[in-house]
Amino acid sequence: MTIQQNNHFEFVSQNAQQAALLHSAADALEWDERTGMPIAAGEYRAEQVSTLRGLAHQKRTDAKYKDSIEQLFNLVDKENSTDLSVITIKKLHGDLQRDTKLSTDLVKKLATLTVRGQQQWDSARKNNCFEEFKPILKEIVNLKREVGDRLKEGTDLRRYESLIDEYEPCARTQHLDQLFENLRIPLVDLIKRIGISNQKPNPNLFRQSLPIEKQRELSRMVAESIGFDFGRGRLDETSHPFCTTLGPHDCRILTRYDPSDLATGLFGTMHEAGHGMYEQGLDPDAFGLPLGSYCSLGIHESQSRMWENQVGRSEAFWTWIAPKLEAQFGPQLGSQPVSELYFAANEIRPSLIRVEADEATYNLHIIIRYDLEKMLIEGTLGVEDLSEAWNTRYHQDLGITVEEDRDGVLQDVHWSAGLFGYFPTYTLGNLIGAQLFASAETAIGDLHQNLANGQFDKLLEWSRDTVHRHGRTMNSEEIVKNATGDTLSPEYLINYLKNKLEPLYGI
Amino acid sequence: MTIQQNNHFEFVSQNAQQAALLHSAADALEWDERTGMPIAAGEYRAEQVSTLRGLAHQKRTDAKYKDSIEQLFNLVDKENSTDLSVITIKKLHGDLQRDTKLSTDLVKKLATLTVRGQQQWDSARKNNCFEEFKPILKEIVNLKREVGDRLKEGTDLRRYESLIDEYEPCARTQHLDQLFENLRIPLVDLIKRIGISNQKPNPNLFRQSLPIEKQRELSRMVAESIGFDFGRGRLDETSHPFCTTLGPHDCRILTRYDPSDLATGLFGTMHEAGHGMYEQGLDPDAFGLPLGSYCSLGIHESQSRMWENQVGRSEAFWTWIAPKLEAQFGPQLGSQPVSELYFAANEIRPSLIRVEADEATYNLHIIIRYDLEKMLIEGTLGVEDLSEAWNTRYHQDLGITVEEDRDGVLQDVHWSAGLFGYFPTYTLGNLIGAQLFASAETAIGDLHQNLANGQFDKLLEWSRDTVHRHGRTMNSEEIVKNATGDTLSPEYLINYLKNKLEPLYGI
Repeated sequence: MTIQQNNHFEFVSQNAQQAALLHSAADALEWDERTGMPIAAGEYRAEQVSTLRGLAHQKRTDAKYKDSIEQLFNLVDKENSTDLSVITIKKLHGDLQRDTKLSTDLVKKLATLTVRGQQQWDSARKNNCFEEFKPILKEIVNLKREVGDRLKEGTDLRRYESLIDEYEPCARTQHLDQLFENLRIPLVDLIKRIGISNQKPNPNLFRQSLPIEKQRELSRMVAESIGFDFGRGRLDETSHPFCTTLGPHDCRILTRYDPSDLATGLFGTMHEAGHGMYEQGLDPDAFGLPLGSYCSLGIHESQSRMWENQVGRSEAFWTWIAPKLEAQFGPQLGSQPVSELYFAANEIRPSLIRVEADEATYNLHIIIRYDLEKMLIEGTLGVEDLSEAWNTRYHQDLGITVEEDRDGVLQDVHWSAGLFGYFPTYTLGNLIGAQLFASAETAIGDLHQNLANGQFDKLLEWSRDTVHRHGRTMNSEEIVKNATGDTLSPEYLINYLKNKLEPLYGI
Repeated sequence: MTIQQNNHFEFVSQNAQQAALLHSAADALEWDERTGMPIAAGEYRAEQVSTLRGLAHQKRTDAKYKDSIEQLFNLVDKENSTDLSVITIKKLHGDLQRDTKLSTDLVKKLATLTVRGQQQWDSARKNNCFEEFKPILKEIVNLKREVGDRLKEGTDLRRYESLIDEYEPCARTQHLDQLFENLRIPLVDLIKRIGISNQKPNPNLFRQSLPIEKQRELSRMVAESIGFDFGRGRLDETSHPFCTTLGPHDCRILTRYDPSDLATGLFGTMHEAGHGMYEQGLDPDAFGLPLGSYCSLGIHESQSRMWENQVGRSEAFWTWIAPKLEAQFGPQLGSQPVSELYFAANEIRPSLIRVEADEATYNLHIIIRYDLEKMLIEGTLGVEDLSEAWNTRYHQDLGITVEEDRDGVLQDVHWSAGLFGYFPTYTLGNLIGAQLFASAETAIGDLHQNLANGQFDKLLEWSRDTVHRHGRTMNSEEIVKNATGDTLSPEYLINYLKNKLEPLYGI
């Protein structure tokens, strides 16, 4: 008898899918919250969302479910099978272990603390006062240490690793340290050389007054052209762009437009569309099961960054879009040669704010956060000294001075929300995206010609085949190895950046 | 010890509010479904909604809840108290009786049948083919008869009355028959006299090309001016306008615009804003409890119709809005005298389609449906003969000939959705609205002067005080009696229409 024929199997699958259904309903309420819910509705909305997530958690830790999972797991534990049902049970068993390690009390305590944390952070940032944020950040760090300690029980993980594990299963700090250091050194050098070059893009080309309505039409056209399926998704606007999936055929991407900067809306939309196409490439029938779920945040980010950067900032893409800019915006942008537009899309300039950083300096922002949060959780850096440590690193790595905490340690929401271990997945995404794209270039001989013709389907198909369709039945290491024939290496991103930026900046 | 101090009371209140929370989450998903959800998402969305409504039903019929309600009810059953807690328990006990009379099987069967019913109706209407709709309508009528029989058990209601009871508690057919007949006769006469008058409004005044964007701004301004609170609500667009409440501070109204007819968007918005202001006037802390719930659909409709008609089609309102039309649309509408605009807002013309009907003929459409559906449910008319019966009545009452079933018996979705007993609440709403407005005129001496100055707050305050704040702690009869000092009578609507229309049409 196969595991799939075992009479617990259907119950277990259904239970997992029902939990996902409740989460997806909560996701829909949160999407609505961020797209124009009336201001006064916030408190009750929080109650609706937490009720639904609570019901989902009940389903995921329910005694009958536990018992069925354990029985099935005992049958497959020793098997090294690639059978989908076997993998499904192993993954769901892993989820259950995690879900049951934290008491409901601890989960609630964390939820309450991080809601307060985000409020305090918001206020502290407005007041440019890190002192104001310190007390609660200390509480959050302490609680996350406790969470990490609980989660690492029965594993060989370090405390911080057990936190990363939630976002990037199987990531280890030793490996990340090495990857990031091998990336940081050549990046710092490249950025320095670009900084002293006399060749610069025209800084005003994208930064001119461009009607939002026109930008909106352009973004929608681009998202549709690269492959985001509007029959199974939507594009909306919000203050902090994101992508969320409200059901197997309902992916929502959200962007924002700056009336005086083309880059914000265009690259933001391509980024979210990359996330969205990944979600749309998962098996809809397996929604809520490992096959129908994303692999990790690193893999997710690889898809968004690849479309935003490897595609969106390529010469081929600008060759394709240049005539469309003329049609949309008239001579303002239309009279520019492709080479100028392409150069403007690749402006490299160290800056203080992560979310506004270019493709080369972005990872330096992440590595700083990774190093600092690792120390915070492991206990080798105190919240007391965080601001100074932050500013020192920005000076060392990016050569810039942080004048105010609101442009420094107070700029990101993550820590106030308890999201320790989340930051490294951004750089993992950049590394994986570059490595995948290099393989796609080899696999699709005329990829750049395709992109220049506006034919984006081959790259999407290749991504569907190598990444999307596997869901989380493989971990990210396996996906990378399987798709690229190599283990993850910073060389791909470094070479990609050098090959593009050195000629542009004449260095 | 008061009932409120009984230790079951808090549990019962919380349980009722939690059930309402689950329903409100489902309402949010349905709102999203009707405001741009991706097409392919429909099937899963139905599953999300039915799961949440199923969980709410479980809460409302849960054994512990039942037991607590029964214990509390036994303590208050004989009391004739106006204490809020006593009333709350009596109402919740009544809900429980209803909720438990229908088996889960029957509820599911009805849900499935009416989903199919709406699909069949949609197709039959497109094909203009009543024959296609007959078989499933027969099934629906039969099942609703069964539902009615179950619901009337242990009561003195007739079968059809037990169905109306879901929308308009305490309505009795003998009373409705009499009300409607006393309304129908003078209405038919008034409409006939208007029909032969030579004085007619300019039919093209509102029916000209008016940019949707401008109409949208106007509608929002009007909704805000009359008192819809955008801090606790939203105005959106959809194909079939409605109002829904997603939480105690989250009321959503939806309208639609016709680029070549001002009336559709403007009166549609005022109608939905009237519903919305009622919802916003309920006690937010009692959301999900009788005090925080609407009284009946008749009372709900009285609020929408009063703002749409008694206010929106008054000379005072057009005095206020005329200069705004000039600012918004320029000379197209601005150059018109108030008297012309006011007359155009009161165009009376018998027509085939209920949702496009004017204020005078609208009730004739309803009375026909009421008479027919009552006979269908009581068994004195068969689905076989429905189309002919419909056409005969339209000829008799409105003097017009139905050429095609799609403009006749197939025009409304209600019966296909199993909503028997819903139609009479529309006319009850018109009667109640007129009666309430007449009382408001007396209570607020200078009401018309207020309206002409754009001061809508006194009417809203009066409505809050006499209607909204009571929720469903009083039934509709009690609210009307309390607010107007009179039992419900068609005289108010008839006098209102005569006093307005006779001078306009010179009859």
